[in-house]
Amino acid sequence: MPDLYIANKNYSSWSLRPWVLMQTLDIPFNEQLVPFRGGLGASREAFTRFSPSGLVPCLVDGDIAVWDSLAIIEYVAEQHPQVWPKDKVARAWARSACAEMHSGFTTLRDECSMNCGVRVALDRVSAGLSSDIERLDARWQEGVARFSGPFLAGNEFTAVDAFYAPVVFRVQTFGLPLSEVSRAYVKRMLALPAMQAWYQAALEETWREPAHEADTLQHGTLTADYRNA
Amino acid sequence: MPDLYIANKNYSSWSLRPWVLMQTLDIPFNEQLVPFRGGLGASREAFTRFSPSGLVPCLVDGDIAVWDSLAIIEYVAEQHPQVWPKDKVARAWARSACAEMHSGFTTLRDECSMNCGVRVALDRVSAGLSSDIERLDARWQEGVARFSGPFLAGNEFTAVDAFYAPVVFRVQTFGLPLSEVSRAYVKRMLALPAMQAWYQAALEETWREPAHEADTLQHGTLTADYRNA
Ligand SMILES: N[C@@H](CCC(=O)N[C@@H](CS)C(=O)NCC(=O)O)C(=O)O
Ligand SMILES: N[C@@H](CCC(=O)N[C@@H](CS)C(=O)NCC(=O)O)C(=O)O
Repeated sequence: MPDLYIANKNYSSWSLRPWVLMQTLDIPFNEQLVPFRGGLGASREAFTRFSPSGLVPCLVDGDIAVWDSLAIIEYVAEQHPQVWPKDKVARAWARSACAEMHSGFTTLRDECSMNCGVRVALDRVSAGLSSDIERLDARWQEGVARFSGPFLAGNEFTAVDAFYAPVVFRVQTFGLPLSEVSRAYVKRMLALPAMQAWYQAALEETWREPAHEADTLQHGTLTADYRNA
Repeated sequence: MPDLYIANKNYSSWSLRPWVLMQTLDIPFNEQLVPFRGGLGASREAFTRFSPSGLVPCLVDGDIAVWDSLAIIEYVAEQHPQVWPKDKVARAWARSACAEMHSGFTTLRDECSMNCGVRVALDRVSAGLSSDIERLDARWQEGVARFSGPFLAGNEFTAVDAFYAPVVFRVQTFGLPLSEVSRAYVKRMLALPAMQAWYQAALEETWREPAHEADTLQHGTLTADYRNA
Protein backbone atom coordinates (compact mmCIF):
# COMPACT_ATOMS: atom_id res chain seq x y z
CA MET A 1 0.00 0.00 0.00
CA PRO A 2 1.53 3.42 -0.91
CA ASP A 3 2.29 6.12 1.65
CA LEU A 4 0.70 9.49 1.00
CA TYR A 5 2.72 12.26 2.67
CA ILE A 6 0.68 15.33 3.45
CA ALA A 7 0.96 18.34 5.78
CA ASN A 8 -1.53 20.05 8.13
CA LYS A 9 -5.10 19.42 7.03
CA ASN A 10 -6.08 22.91 8.07
CA TYR A 11 -3.64 24.56 5.66
CA SER A 12 -2.29 22.20 3.03
CA SER A 13 -4.44 22.71 -0.01
CA TRP A 14 -2.35 20.65 -2.42
CA SER A 15 -2.34 17.74 0.02
CA LEU A 16 -6.12 17.61 0.03
CA ARG A 17 -6.39 16.79 -3.67
CA PRO A 18 -5.03 13.21 -3.77
CA TRP A 19 -6.26 12.54 -0.22
CA VAL A 20 -9.91 13.32 -0.96
CA LEU A 21 -9.72 11.48 -4.27
CA MET A 22 -8.29 8.28 -2.85
CA GLN A 23 -10.59 8.36 0.18
CA THR A 24 -13.69 8.94 -1.89
CA LEU A 25 -12.82 6.26 -4.45
CA ASP A 26 -11.72 3.77 -1.77
CA ILE A 27 -8.18 3.54 -3.06
CA PRO A 28 -6.03 2.27 -0.19
CA PHE A 29 -3.10 4.33 1.16
CA ASN A 30 -1.29 5.03 4.41
CA GLU A 31 -1.65 8.61 5.51
CA GLN A 32 1.66 10.13 6.65
CA LEU A 33 0.99 13.57 8.06
CA VAL A 34 4.12 15.66 8.58
CA PRO A 35 3.24 19.13 9.92
CA PHE A 36 4.83 22.31 8.61
CA ARG A 37 7.67 23.47 10.83
CA GLY A 38 8.78 27.06 11.18
CA GLY A 39 6.27 28.39 8.73
CA LEU A 40 5.22 27.62 5.20
CA GLY A 41 8.23 27.74 2.92
CA ALA A 42 10.53 26.67 5.73
CA SER A 43 9.58 23.00 5.67
CA ARG A 44 11.18 22.10 2.38
CA GLU A 45 14.40 20.91 3.98
CA ALA A 46 12.52 18.56 6.33
CA PHE A 47 10.21 17.34 3.57
CA THR A 48 13.10 16.31 1.31
CA ARG A 49 13.46 13.26 3.55
CA PHE A 50 10.55 11.75 1.59
CA SER A 51 9.83 14.23 -1.23
CA PRO A 52 12.38 15.04 -3.98
CA SER A 53 11.00 18.58 -4.37
CA GLY A 54 10.66 19.19 -0.63
CA LEU A 55 6.95 19.73 -1.18
CA VAL A 56 3.84 17.83 -0.16
CA PRO A 57 1.87 15.91 -1.24
CA CYS A 58 4.20 13.09 -2.18
CA LEU A 59 3.11 9.52 -2.85
CA VAL A 60 5.72 6.91 -2.05
CA ASP A 61 5.00 3.52 -3.59
CA GLY A 62 7.94 1.21 -2.91
CA ASP A 63 10.86 2.69 -4.85
CA ILE A 64 8.73 5.26 -6.61
CA ALA A 65 8.21 8.79 -5.27
CA VAL A 66 5.58 10.86 -7.07
CA TRP A 67 6.08 14.43 -5.87
CA ASP A 68 3.24 16.49 -7.28
CA SER A 69 -0.51 16.33 -6.78
CA LEU A 70 -1.38 16.16 -10.48
CA ALA A 71 1.29 13.54 -11.15
CA ILE A 72 -0.01 11.50 -8.19
CA ILE A 73 -3.46 11.54 -9.69
CA GLU A 74 -2.26 10.32 -13.08
CA TYR A 75 -0.09 7.69 -11.40
CA VAL A 76 -3.03 6.38 -9.41
CA ALA A 77 -5.28 6.52 -12.49
CA GLU A 78 -3.09 3.96 -14.26
CA GLN A 79 -4.33 1.33 -11.78
CA HIS A 80 -7.70 2.89 -11.02
CA PRO A 81 -9.37 4.17 -14.19
CA GLN A 82 -12.34 5.51 -12.20
CA VAL A 83 -10.08 8.45 -11.27
CA TRP A 84 -11.15 10.04 -14.59
CA PRO A 85 -14.59 10.13 -16.21
CA LYS A 86 -15.26 7.15 -18.50
CA ASP A 87 -16.61 9.37 -21.26
CA LYS A 88 -13.88 10.73 -23.55
CA VAL A 89 -15.38 14.21 -23.86
CA ALA A 90 -15.87 14.52 -20.10
CA ARG A 91 -12.37 13.21 -19.51
CA ALA A 92 -10.77 15.79 -21.82
CA TRP A 93 -12.78 18.52 -20.09
CA ALA A 94 -11.82 17.24 -16.63
CA ARG A 95 -8.14 17.05 -17.51
CA SER A 96 -8.21 20.59 -18.93
CA ALA A 97 -9.95 21.97 -15.83
CA CYS A 98 -7.47 20.20 -13.53
CA ALA A 99 -4.40 21.41 -15.39
CA GLU A 100 -5.88 24.92 -15.58
CA MET A 101 -6.25 24.92 -11.78
CA HIS A 102 -2.75 23.49 -11.37
CA SER A 103 -1.06 26.35 -13.20
CA GLY A 104 -3.59 29.13 -12.75
CA PHE A 105 -6.00 30.89 -10.41
CA THR A 106 -2.98 32.42 -8.70
CA THR A 107 -4.78 35.45 -7.29
CA LEU A 108 -7.45 33.27 -5.73
CA ARG A 109 -4.74 31.08 -4.22
CA ASP A 110 -2.64 34.02 -2.99
CA GLU A 111 -5.43 36.17 -1.60
CA CYS A 112 -7.59 33.39 -0.15
CA SER A 113 -5.17 30.87 1.27
CA MET A 114 -6.71 27.67 2.60
CA ASN A 115 -7.41 27.81 6.31
CA CYS A 116 -10.32 25.42 6.75
CA GLY A 117 -11.26 26.24 10.34
CA VAL A 118 -11.74 29.99 10.16
CA ARG A 119 -14.14 32.44 8.58
CA VAL A 120 -12.98 35.74 7.15
CA ALA A 121 -14.87 38.79 5.89
CA LEU A 122 -12.93 40.24 2.97
CA ASP A 123 -12.45 44.02 3.03
CA ARG A 124 -12.79 44.11 -0.73
CA VAL A 125 -12.65 41.78 -3.70
CA SER A 126 -9.67 42.88 -5.80
CA ALA A 127 -9.95 42.99 -9.59
CA GLY A 128 -7.69 39.94 -9.91
CA LEU A 129 -9.68 37.96 -7.38
CA SER A 130 -12.93 38.93 -8.97
CA SER A 131 -11.74 37.72 -12.36
CA ASP A 132 -10.56 34.41 -10.86
CA ILE A 133 -13.92 33.94 -9.13
CA GLU A 134 -15.74 34.65 -12.38
CA ARG A 135 -13.62 32.10 -14.22
CA LEU A 136 -14.11 29.53 -11.45
CA ASP A 137 -17.84 30.06 -11.44
CA ALA A 138 -18.01 29.74 -15.22
CA ARG A 139 -16.02 26.50 -15.09
CA TRP A 140 -18.24 24.98 -12.38
CA GLN A 141 -21.47 26.01 -14.08
CA GLU A 142 -20.23 24.69 -17.40
CA GLY A 143 -19.18 21.32 -15.93
CA VAL A 144 -22.36 20.71 -13.98
CA ALA A 145 -24.59 21.71 -16.92
CA ARG A 146 -22.69 19.98 -19.67
CA PHE A 147 -22.21 16.61 -17.97
CA SER A 148 -25.50 16.74 -16.02
CA GLY A 149 -23.95 16.74 -12.51
CA PRO A 150 -24.10 16.38 -9.63
CA PHE A 151 -20.29 16.43 -9.93
CA LEU A 152 -18.18 18.54 -12.27
CA ALA A 153 -17.73 15.91 -14.97
CA GLY A 154 -20.79 13.73 -14.51
CA ASN A 155 -22.52 11.64 -11.93
CA GLU A 156 -19.37 10.30 -10.27
CA PHE A 157 -16.78 12.08 -8.15
CA THR A 158 -13.56 12.18 -10.21
CA ALA A 159 -10.16 13.87 -10.16
CA VAL A 160 -11.56 17.20 -11.29
CA ASP A 161 -13.73 17.43 -8.15
CA ALA A 162 -10.67 16.54 -6.07
CA PHE A 163 -8.69 19.28 -7.78
CA TYR A 164 -11.30 21.91 -6.96
CA ALA A 165 -11.87 20.62 -3.39
CA PRO A 166 -9.39 23.07 -1.81
CA VAL A 167 -11.25 25.91 -3.51
CA VAL A 168 -14.46 24.66 -1.93
CA PHE A 169 -12.92 25.25 1.51
CA ARG A 170 -11.64 28.66 0.40
CA VAL A 171 -15.14 29.61 -0.73
CA GLN A 172 -16.45 28.60 2.70
CA THR A 173 -13.73 30.48 4.61
CA PHE A 174 -13.94 33.72 2.64
CA GLY A 175 -17.62 33.61 1.67
CA LEU A 176 -16.78 34.10 -1.99
CA PRO A 177 -19.71 35.23 -4.15
CA LEU A 178 -20.90 32.56 -6.59
CA SER A 179 -23.90 31.67 -8.74
CA GLU A 180 -26.64 29.45 -7.36
CA VAL A 181 -25.43 26.46 -9.38
CA SER A 182 -21.92 26.81 -7.95
CA ARG A 183 -23.20 27.37 -4.41
CA ALA A 184 -25.16 24.13 -4.67
CA TYR A 185 -22.02 22.35 -5.89
CA VAL A 186 -20.06 23.68 -2.91
CA LYS A 187 -22.76 22.39 -0.58
CA ARG A 188 -22.67 18.92 -2.14
CA MET A 189 -18.89 18.83 -1.90
CA LEU A 190 -18.87 19.91 1.75
CA ALA A 191 -21.32 17.11 2.54
CA LEU A 192 -19.07 14.35 1.18
CA PRO A 193 -17.81 12.00 3.90
CA ALA A 194 -14.17 12.51 2.90
CA MET A 195 -14.53 16.30 2.96
CA GLN A 196 -16.19 16.13 6.36
CA ALA A 197 -13.46 13.86 7.71
CA TRP A 198 -10.74 16.22 6.44
CA TYR A 199 -12.55 19.22 7.89
CA GLN A 200 -13.03 17.62 11.32
CA ALA A 201 -9.37 16.61 11.45
CA ALA A 202 -8.39 20.17 10.47
CA LEU A 203 -10.44 21.58 13.34
CA GLU A 204 -8.74 19.23 15.78
CA GLU A 205 -5.22 20.29 14.80
CA THR A 206 -3.59 22.61 17.32
CA TRP A 207 -0.58 23.63 15.22
CA ARG A 208 -0.68 27.31 14.24
CA GLU A 209 1.53 28.76 11.54
CA PRO A 210 1.95 32.52 12.12
CA ALA A 211 2.83 33.24 8.49
CA HIS A 212 -0.18 31.36 7.21
CA GLU A 213 -2.48 32.95 9.80
CA ALA A 214 -1.25 36.40 8.76
CA ASP A 215 -1.74 35.49 5.11
CA THR A 216 -5.32 34.53 5.78
CA LEU A 217 -6.10 37.95 7.21
CA GLN A 218 -4.13 39.89 4.58
CA HIS A 219 -7.29 41.32 3.02
CA GLY A 220 -9.95 40.69 5.65
CA THR A 221 -11.13 40.37 9.23
CA LEU A 222 -11.58 37.21 11.25
CA THR A 223 -15.22 36.54 11.99
CA ALA A 224 -14.99 33.03 13.44
CA ASP A 225 -12.46 30.38 14.41
CA TYR A 226 -13.89 26.88 14.86
CA ARG A 227 -10.57 25.20 15.61
CA ASN A 228 -9.76 23.62 18.95
CA ALA A 229 -7.44 25.84 20.90
CA MET B 1 -6.54 15.55 -37.69
CA PRO B 2 -6.75 17.87 -34.65
CA ASP B 3 -6.02 21.60 -34.82
CA LEU B 4 -3.35 22.87 -32.44
CA TYR B 5 -3.86 26.57 -31.71
CA ILE B 6 -0.69 28.35 -30.69
CA ALA B 7 0.56 31.94 -30.55
CA ASN B 8 3.82 33.60 -31.67
CA LYS B 9 6.66 31.11 -31.73
CA ASN B 10 9.07 33.73 -30.48
CA TYR B 11 7.14 34.30 -27.25
CA SER B 12 4.61 31.59 -26.51
CA SER B 13 6.32 29.19 -24.15
CA TRP B 14 3.27 27.09 -23.28
CA SER B 15 2.49 26.66 -26.99
CA LEU B 16 5.88 25.12 -27.62
CA ARG B 17 5.26 22.13 -25.34
CA PRO B 18 2.62 20.18 -27.29
CA TRP B 19 3.99 21.46 -30.61
CA VAL B 20 7.51 20.12 -30.07
CA LEU B 21 6.14 16.87 -28.67
CA MET B 22 3.81 16.16 -31.54
CA GLN B 23 6.37 17.20 -34.15
CA THR B 24 9.12 15.09 -32.65
CA LEU B 25 6.92 12.01 -32.24
CA ASP B 26 5.33 12.43 -35.69
CA ILE B 27 1.82 12.85 -34.32
CA PRO B 28 -0.21 14.61 -37.01
CA PHE B 29 -1.87 17.98 -36.34
CA ASN B 30 -2.78 21.20 -38.14
CA GLU B 31 -0.91 24.17 -36.80
CA GLN B 32 -3.15 27.20 -36.25
CA LEU B 33 -1.01 30.15 -35.28
CA VAL B 34 -2.95 33.13 -33.93
CA PRO B 35 -0.60 35.96 -32.91
CA PHE B 36 -1.00 37.93 -29.70
CA ARG B 37 -2.81 41.22 -30.29
CA GLY B 38 -2.37 44.31 -28.17
CA GLY B 39 0.07 42.69 -25.80
CA LEU B 40 0.22 39.57 -23.75
CA GLY B 41 -2.81 39.38 -21.49
CA ALA B 42 -4.90 41.31 -23.98
CA SER B 43 -5.49 38.42 -26.33
CA ARG B 44 -7.78 36.38 -24.12
CA GLU B 45 -10.93 37.82 -25.65
CA ALA B 46 -9.79 36.95 -29.18
CA PHE B 47 -8.56 33.51 -28.14
CA THR B 48 -11.93 32.53 -26.65
CA ARG B 49 -13.12 32.00 -30.22
CA PHE B 50 -11.36 28.63 -30.07
CA SER B 51 -10.13 28.25 -26.46
CA PRO B 52 -12.55 28.10 -23.47
CA SER B 53 -9.95 29.70 -21.17
CA GLY B 54 -8.86 32.31 -23.69
CA LEU B 55 -5.36 30.89 -23.48
CA VAL B 56 -3.12 29.03 -25.89
CA PRO B 57 -2.24 26.29 -26.55
CA CYS B 58 -5.59 24.69 -27.25
CA LEU B 59 -6.08 21.43 -29.13
CA VAL B 60 -9.36 21.18 -31.00
CA ASP B 61 -10.25 17.63 -32.03
CA GLY B 62 -13.72 17.62 -33.58
CA ASP B 63 -16.10 18.57 -30.74
CA ILE B 64 -13.40 18.39 -28.09
CA ALA B 65 -11.36 21.41 -26.99
CA VAL B 66 -8.43 20.66 -24.70
CA TRP B 67 -7.33 24.02 -23.32
CA ASP B 68 -4.14 23.44 -21.36
CA SER B 69 -0.72 22.17 -22.38
CA LEU B 70 -0.54 19.40 -19.78
CA ALA B 71 -4.08 18.26 -20.50
CA ILE B 72 -3.26 18.22 -24.24
CA ILE B 73 -0.32 15.97 -23.57
CA GLU B 74 -2.37 13.48 -21.54
CA TYR B 75 -5.13 13.61 -24.17
CA VAL B 76 -2.67 12.82 -26.94
CA ALA B 77 -1.02 10.11 -24.80
CA GLU B 78 -4.25 8.12 -24.74
CA GLN B 79 -3.80 7.40 -28.46
CA HIS B 80 0.00 7.63 -28.55
CA PRO B 81 1.56 5.87 -25.57
CA GLN B 82 5.06 6.87 -26.69
CA VAL B 83 4.28 10.31 -25.24
CA TRP B 84 5.38 8.91 -21.85
CA PRO B 85 8.31 6.60 -21.05
CA LYS B 86 7.44 2.89 -21.27
CA ASP B 87 9.12 2.15 -17.93
CA LYS B 88 6.84 2.71 -14.94
CA VAL B 89 9.51 4.31 -12.74
CA ALA B 90 10.63 6.67 -15.51
CA ARG B 91 7.00 7.51 -16.28
CA ALA B 92 6.22 8.43 -12.65
CA TRP B 93 9.36 10.58 -12.57
CA ALA B 94 8.49 12.24 -15.89
CA ARG B 95 4.94 13.01 -14.79
CA SER B 96 6.18 14.50 -11.51
CA ALA B 97 8.74 16.68 -13.27
CA CYS B 98 6.13 17.88 -15.79
CA ALA B 99 3.54 18.74 -13.16
CA GLU B 100 6.21 20.43 -11.04
CA MET B 101 7.11 22.65 -14.00
CA HIS B 102 3.43 23.29 -14.71
CA SER B 103 2.74 24.75 -11.27
CA GLY B 104 6.19 25.92 -10.25
CA PHE B 105 9.40 27.65 -11.30
CA THR B 106 7.51 30.93 -11.21
CA THR B 107 10.54 33.15 -10.67
CA LEU B 108 12.34 31.60 -13.61
CA ARG B 109 9.24 32.13 -15.73
CA ASP B 110 8.67 35.70 -14.54
CA GLU B 111 12.24 36.94 -14.68
CA CYS B 112 13.34 35.12 -17.83
CA SER B 113 10.37 35.24 -20.16
CA MET B 114 10.70 33.31 -23.38
CA ASN B 115 11.94 35.43 -26.26
CA CYS B 116 13.72 32.96 -28.52
CA GLY B 117 15.41 35.38 -30.89
CA VAL B 118 17.28 37.63 -28.49
CA ARG B 119 20.21 37.37 -26.10
CA VAL B 120 20.23 39.17 -22.76
CA ALA B 121 22.96 39.70 -20.16
CA LEU B 122 21.31 39.61 -16.73
CA ASP B 123 22.36 42.40 -14.36
CA ARG B 124 22.18 40.00 -11.46
CA VAL B 125 20.70 36.61 -10.61
CA SER B 126 18.09 37.20 -7.88
CA ALA B 127 17.84 34.79 -4.94
CA GLY B 128 14.55 33.42 -6.25
CA LEU B 129 15.96 32.90 -9.74
CA SER B 130 19.06 31.29 -8.37
CA SER B 131 17.02 28.80 -6.36
CA ASP B 132 14.87 27.97 -9.40
CA ILE B 133 17.99 27.42 -11.51
CA GLU B 134 19.45 25.16 -8.85
CA ARG B 135 16.27 23.11 -8.72
CA LEU B 136 16.13 22.93 -12.50
CA ASP B 137 19.72 21.83 -12.72
CA ALA B 138 19.20 19.18 -10.05
CA ARG B 139 16.14 17.84 -11.90
CA TRP B 140 17.97 17.64 -15.24
CA GLN B 141 21.06 16.02 -13.75
CA GLU B 142 18.95 13.53 -11.87
CA GLY B 143 16.89 12.58 -14.93
CA VAL B 144 19.82 12.15 -17.28
CA ALA B 145 21.82 10.12 -14.72
CA ARG B 146 19.00 7.97 -13.42
CA PHE B 147 17.51 6.93 -16.75
CA SER B 148 20.83 6.97 -18.64
CA GLY B 149 19.94 9.76 -21.11
CA PRO B 150 20.34 11.25 -23.58
CA PHE B 151 16.85 12.58 -22.76
CA LEU B 152 15.42 13.36 -19.33
CA ALA B 153 13.61 10.09 -18.85
CA GLY B 154 15.61 7.70 -21.00
CA ASN B 155 16.74 7.22 -24.55
CA GLU B 156 13.60 8.57 -26.20
CA PHE B 157 12.24 12.10 -26.34
CA THR B 158 9.05 12.15 -24.23
CA ALA B 159 6.61 14.65 -22.72
CA VAL B 160 9.02 15.66 -19.98
CA ASP B 161 11.53 16.92 -22.55
CA ALA B 162 8.70 18.80 -24.26
CA PHE B 163 7.72 20.38 -20.94
CA TYR B 164 11.24 21.65 -20.33
CA ALA B 165 11.77 22.77 -23.95
CA PRO B 166 10.69 26.39 -23.28
CA VAL B 167 13.26 26.53 -20.46
CA VAL B 168 15.93 25.42 -22.91
CA PHE B 169 15.25 28.57 -24.96
CA ARG B 170 15.25 30.68 -21.79
CA VAL B 171 18.65 29.25 -20.85
CA GLN B 172 19.93 30.21 -24.30
CA THR B 173 18.48 33.72 -24.21
CA PHE B 174 19.64 34.60 -20.71
CA GLY B 175 22.81 32.49 -20.56
CA LEU B 176 21.71 30.87 -17.32
CA PRO B 177 24.50 29.13 -15.37
CA LEU B 178 24.18 25.33 -15.34
CA SER B 179 26.25 22.24 -14.68
CA GLU B 180 28.07 20.54 -17.52
CA VAL B 181 25.52 17.72 -17.66
CA SER B 182 22.68 20.22 -18.03
CA ARG B 183 24.56 22.30 -20.59
CA ALA B 184 25.05 19.17 -22.69
CA TYR B 185 21.33 18.43 -22.41
CA VAL B 186 20.50 21.97 -23.59
CA LYS B 187 22.79 21.50 -26.58
CA ARG B 188 21.12 18.20 -27.53
CA MET B 189 17.69 19.76 -27.22
CA LEU B 190 18.62 22.79 -29.34
CA ALA B 191 19.88 20.43 -32.05
CA LEU B 192 16.57 18.57 -32.41
CA PRO B 193 14.91 19.18 -35.80
CA ALA B 194 11.64 20.31 -34.17
CA MET B 195 13.44 22.76 -31.89
CA GLN B 196 15.39 24.14 -34.85
CA ALA B 197 12.22 24.50 -36.92
CA TRP B 198 10.47 26.37 -34.07
CA TYR B 199 13.48 28.61 -33.58
CA GLN B 200 13.81 29.48 -37.28
CA ALA B 201 10.11 30.29 -37.49
CA ALA B 202 10.45 32.47 -34.36
CA LEU B 203 13.29 34.42 -35.99
CA GLU B 204 11.19 35.02 -39.08
CA GLU B 205 8.25 36.49 -37.17
CA THR B 206 8.04 40.27 -37.42
CA TRP B 207 5.39 40.82 -34.71
CA ARG B 208 6.79 42.68 -31.71
CA GLU B 209 4.93 42.83 -28.39
CA PRO B 210 6.10 45.91 -26.46
CA ALA B 211 5.06 44.46 -23.06
CA HIS B 212 6.88 41.23 -23.70
CA GLU B 213 9.96 43.02 -25.04
CA ALA B 214 10.04 45.18 -21.90
CA ASP B 215 9.59 42.10 -19.72
CA THR B 216 12.57 40.48 -21.37
CA LEU B 217 14.81 43.38 -20.45
CA GLN B 218 13.41 43.82 -16.93
CA HIS B 219 16.61 42.58 -15.31
CA GLY B 220 19.18 42.76 -18.08
CA THR B 221 20.63 44.32 -21.21
CA LEU B 222 20.11 43.26 -24.80
CA THR B 223 23.29 41.85 -26.31
CA ALA B 224 21.91 40.46 -29.58
CA ASP B 225 18.70 40.26 -31.60
CA TYR B 226 18.70 37.62 -34.33
CA ARG B 227 15.15 38.24 -35.49
CA ASN B 228 14.27 39.56 -38.94
CA ALA B 229 13.34 43.21 -38.74
N1 LIG C 1 2.91 21.47 -7.47
C1 LIG C 1 2.93 20.92 -6.15
C2 LIG C 1 2.86 22.02 -5.13
C3 LIG C 1 2.94 21.53 -3.72
C4 LIG C 1 3.15 22.64 -2.67
O1 LIG C 1 3.42 23.80 -3.00
N2 LIG C 1 3.02 22.23 -1.39
C5 LIG C 1 3.22 23.13 -0.24
C6 LIG C 1 2.17 22.92 0.83
S1 LIG C 1 0.49 22.85 0.31
C7 LIG C 1 4.53 22.77 0.45
O2 LIG C 1 4.87 21.61 0.57
N3 LIG C 1 5.27 23.76 0.96
C8 LIG C 1 6.47 23.52 1.70
C9 LIG C 1 6.65 24.57 2.73
O3 LIG C 1 5.74 25.37 2.84
O4 LIG C 1 7.68 24.56 3.39
C10 LIG C 1 1.79 19.92 -6.02
O5 LIG C 1 0.76 20.07 -6.69
O6 LIG C 1 1.94 18.93 -5.31
N1 LIG D 1 -1.92 26.56 -18.14
C1 LIG D 1 -1.97 27.03 -19.49
C2 LIG D 1 -1.32 28.38 -19.60
C3 LIG D 1 -1.37 28.97 -20.98
C4 LIG D 1 -0.99 30.44 -21.06
O1 LIG D 1 -0.83 31.15 -20.06
N2 LIG D 1 -0.85 30.93 -22.32
C5 LIG D 1 -0.51 32.32 -22.61
C6 LIG D 1 0.53 32.43 -23.69
S1 LIG D 1 1.93 31.39 -23.59
C7 LIG D 1 -1.73 33.02 -23.18
O2 LIG D 1 -2.49 32.44 -23.95
N3 LIG D 1 -1.96 34.28 -22.85
C8 LIG D 1 -3.05 35.06 -23.38
C9 LIG D 1 -2.64 36.47 -23.52
O3 LIG D 1 -1.48 36.74 -23.22
O4 LIG D 1 -3.47 37.30 -23.91
C10 LIG D 1 -1.31 25.98 -20.39
O5 LIG D 1 -0.42 25.27 -19.93
O6 LIG D 1 -1.74 25.81 -21.51
